[in-house]
Amino acid sequence: MIKPEFHVFVCTSSRINGTQKGYCHSNDSTEIVTNFIEAIEENDISDKVMVTNSGCLGLCNEGQIVIVYPEGTWYGKVTPDDVDEIVQSHLINGDIVKRLEI
Amino acid sequence: MIKPEFHVFVCTSSRINGTQKGYCHSNDSTEIVTNFIEAIEENDISDKVMVTNSGCLGLCNEGQIVIVYPEGTWYGKVTPDDVDEIVQSHLINGDIVKRLEI
Repeated sequence: MIKPEFHVFVCTSSRINGTQKGYCHSNDSTEIVTNFIEAIEENDISDKVMVTNSGCLGLCNEGQIVIVYPEGTWYGKVTPDDVDEIVQSHLINGDIVKRLEI
Repeated sequence: MIKPEFHVFVCTSSRINGTQKGYCHSNDSTEIVTNFIEAIEENDISDKVMVTNSGCLGLCNEGQIVIVYPEGTWYGKVTPDDVDEIVQSHLINGDIVKRLEI
């Protein structure tokens, strides 16, 4: 897939030296990634949504951080339980989840 | 910094289990990240450009992959020597580097 309609980046505190160390990695970021992957499959939107883990996004005190491009929506303090709402509201219906927006 | 004007993602094959394994990591992706960071500092555009390493972007045969959002420009077969051109042309002058675009 190339040029997805939505590209979701989830901070997993992945450092370029190969280690993972940081707030998001310590706080369920891996589960957030897997929940996105599962929700995207379940809702059959894998043709338009791509999910990618990332290095530190610089706002650790707002972690866990999730960004959706091309809008450039930054979500903060995201938990694994918030993923379904982001998928349904933002990625399916096009409505940003205001309560999580930074 | 939040909501940068340009957000550059460089695939460093960072897996969510903490290991790095993949084409981009094997081929200078770390040097691409550091070259971006240095060029952004040198050109004094750190207030509008953010660089983040990422997990696999799925087009390994086109690696190394660099994406610039919000445009959603995908660059392929990027080498460390290409970074200055992407910074000057795309991030400073707003012109996509066509020869590298996928």
